[in-house]
Order: sequence, then structure tokens, then C-alpha cells
Amino acid sequence: MRVEIWSDIACPWCYIGKARFEKGLAAFDHRDEIEVVHRSFELDPQLAKGDTGPVIDMITRKYRRTVDEARAMEEHVASTARAEGLPYRTEGRDTGNTFDIHRLLHLARARGRHDELLDLAYRANFGDERSVFDLEVLAELAVEAGLDADEARAVLADDDAYADEVRADEREAAELGASAVPFFVIDRRYGVSGGQPAEVFTQALEQAWQGRAIVPLGADADAAACGPDGACEVPQPGAHS
Amino acid sequence: MRVEIWSDIACPWCYIGKARFEKGLAAFDHRDEIEVVHRSFELDPQLAKGDTGPVIDMITRKYRRTVDEARAMEEHVASTARAEGLPYRTEGRDTGNTFDIHRLLHLARARGRHDELLDLAYRANFGDERSVFDLEVLAELAVEAGLDADEARAVLADDDAYADEVRADEREAAELGASAVPFFVIDRRYGVSGGQPAEVFTQALEQAWQGRAIVPLGADADAAACGPDGACEVPQPGAHS
Repeated sequence: MRVEIWSDIACPWCYIGKARFEKGLAAFDHRDEIEVVHRSFELDPQLAKGDTGPVIDMITRKYRRTVDEARAMEEHVASTARAEGLPYRTEGRDTGNTFDIHRLLHLARARGRHDELLDLAYRANFGDERSVFDLEVLAELAVEAGLDADEARAVLADDDAYADEVRADEREAAELGASAVPFFVIDRRYGVSGGQPAEVFTQALEQAWQGRAIVPLGADADAAACGPDGACEVPQPGAHS
Repeated sequence: MRVEIWSDIACPWCYIGKARFEKGLAAFDHRDEIEVVHRSFELDPQLAKGDTGPVIDMITRKYRRTVDEARAMEEHVASTARAEGLPYRTEGRDTGNTFDIHRLLHLARARGRHDELLDLAYRANFGDERSVFDLEVLAELAVEAGLDADEARAVLADDDAYADEVRADEREAAELGASAVPFFVIDRRYGVSGGQPAEVFTQALEQAWQGRAIVPLGADADAAACGPDGACEVPQPGAHS
């Protein structure tokens, strides 16, 4: 089966949800037969590129809370993350537009380095408070993930590079009805929304595993195929006309 | 949506079916939202590595036909291929064990060169009668596809390299009930077997598109998520305990 995970680096519940999903997956009997694909989702696509600032300011603005309340919310998320074994600092994380990060993640996927970059970016943002909204930091992370420095810089410098890939992921999320992340989809059939406890993921995987079944489409279903032992059926000429 | 295609380079209906699928896909309105993933399937996994020989001999053996009958079968497949605009020679194609080709295709996927290598391998086997069972030819094709020559040779020389990936694909095919190829699976929900006419693929895509729907799993489905405009819901501590 395949699990697709829509998420954003700027989303703390995505960071936590990824760890919880991985714990849930580790407890699933058929874990070796699960392919995981991460997809792009910008938490706040309206934010202009370069409109980067402290997350505490964003929280006070969005939720109309005092700075103390915003700090308490961040502390709650941080304690939840730490309970999952994830490093989480609350001194002064920035937030902003994540389109460039997603473009870079698509380059990393094309080069077989996606998972490395994703983990490094989460770690930088939440664990180390390195600003993933700084192109220089992104270029460093790309190299740490094993990407070619020049290629990564060229992609970061070209706003169109992998832009269609990011938008395609986001369009799919919208079509699937996802308005919040993390959003987990199993075989495009079952969905789990939010950074749920690990057991919820294990149960969802088990339920999806039970519900696997392929509906055959298309008439004349076994024609023009090569079967076991290398034998190729040869349908009569005109049978498919 | 995602279409997975199980196929084998040694399978003429896979070669033809790929072209027909691509025509069917081109006629599908939402073609830009379709991801295509090719998966490994060995037509004749019992064939020992190095047990390579003319396909006409294989046909006479498998189908207990005369050489003339075997040639007529090949000519029929060839004319079907040519009707799809595909080059197909019938002078003396070899067949044999395809495990190494599939391993190399998995390397190519990891390096973002899968589709190039797949087309080159089909073309070599059916259009040019270059033996894809010859490791030297495979190494040449790898370079033509844009892979690093040394890395490709190292993978070809190491029987274990990407072997698990090939077997995982084949295990999945078996679990999905595929015993013949090409086998097309849409979102792990719908299946089309065989190198069907292009219109069958278009119709299957349309039917699958209509039938998309995600079943939500997991209680408390909207908790602990970050939503539109960057707002992160903060569930009460203990709500997920």
C-alpha cells in the first residue's frame, strides 16, 4: 500500500504527526509493504515570499492572543513534540512562506534525497531554530541532504523550478478535501487527518489492509497479455477493433 | 490519481500496451493530474540468469508450435506494434531472464531516469534487436538514459543491488492478483489487465476519476492539525491520551 502525507515544514503538528505516523507504521505487521510519499502543502500560501517573522508574532496576530498566551501555546506544542522524542526550541522560531522549501523538496525527490532533506528541514526549523525561510540556510540543508550545491542554488534562484510540482500536490490535496495538515491518505482510499496518536495510524493501516481489493475495469480483460512462464496470448486480429 | 503499470521488457504486449495506455491517457481530460509509476514483473522468473536465446525458439518450446507458426505469431505481434507506431523487428530477438533489467530500472528510478531507461530498453529489445540480456548492452542503455556509467556497472555486477525492490514489486503484483502483464492499477482501486485499446484506458481513467472518494479513518479527525492561513489548532492536553 502507499501512504501519501501532505504537510508543511512550518506546521508543528506535521512534525509531530510524522513521528507518530512512523511509530504507528513500525507497529504495523505489513510495514515493509508500505511506500510513503510526502506531498507539498503550504500552510499559508497567501504569505508573500520574504514575509518572514517570529512565529510568536504570527500567533498573536492570527489568534488575537497576548504574547504570553502565544508563548504558552508554543510551549504546549513543544512539550507534545518532546514527549515524542523530538527536539523543539521555543526561543524565536521564524515562520513565513514555504513555497521555496517545497520546490527544493521536489528537487530532492528527483535526486533520491527527499527523506533526508525533509528530516533536516524539520529539525532545522523546530529543533535548531535555523530559519528555513533563509535561502542560504536552505542551500546548506540541501548539501547536508546530499544534493549538489550548484543545482540546489540554481533551483532556489529560479522561482519556476519545481513550482508546477508543488502546485500539483496542493491541487490534489484540495481535490481530496484536505484543508488542514498533516493529511494522510492510504491508497487514495482512506484518509487520516491531523497528527493523531500512533495507534490511530496503526489501526488505519490495518483497516486499509483489510479493505484492499482491485475492481477490474475494461472488457476482454485478459486479452493481449503475457502470462506466467513467459507465455504471451495472441488475440485474434480485429478482436479489439 | 496514480496509475501503476506492472510490465516486463521481454513482453511485447507490455511494449504495445504502454503506447496504448499513453494514447488513452492523452485523451483523458485530467491527464495532468495522473502520476504514472512503472513496476517490475518478470515474465519468466524461472529462467536462469544467462539462459538467453532466440525468442522464436522459446515460442516453439512454450507453445509447441513449428518455427513457421512461431514466426507468424511474432509477425502478428509486430504488425500490431507497427499499427501503434512502434518499431518492431522480427529477425532474431533474444529473450531471457529480466531480473538485471528490472534492478537497473530501479537504480534509474532512484536517479530520476526511469522513464528514459524504460523507453530505451523497450526500443532496444523490440525496435533494434539489441540484446537487453547482455550486461554490456544494459550498461550502454544506462548511459544513454543519463545514468552514471560506473554506478550502473556496479549495480549490474552486484546481484543484490535493488533486488529487494524488484521482489517487492512482484510480491505486490501477486497480492493484487496479477498473473499476467501488462497490468494497470489506478489508485490501488481499479485494475486493467492486458494491452487494451487506448479507449479502454481512457474509459477506465474516467470511471476511476468519478469514483474517487476518501473514507476518513481515525477518531477525533480534525484534532492536532494546522489549517488554512497557517492557523494551528491546539487540542487540549490529554485529548489524545
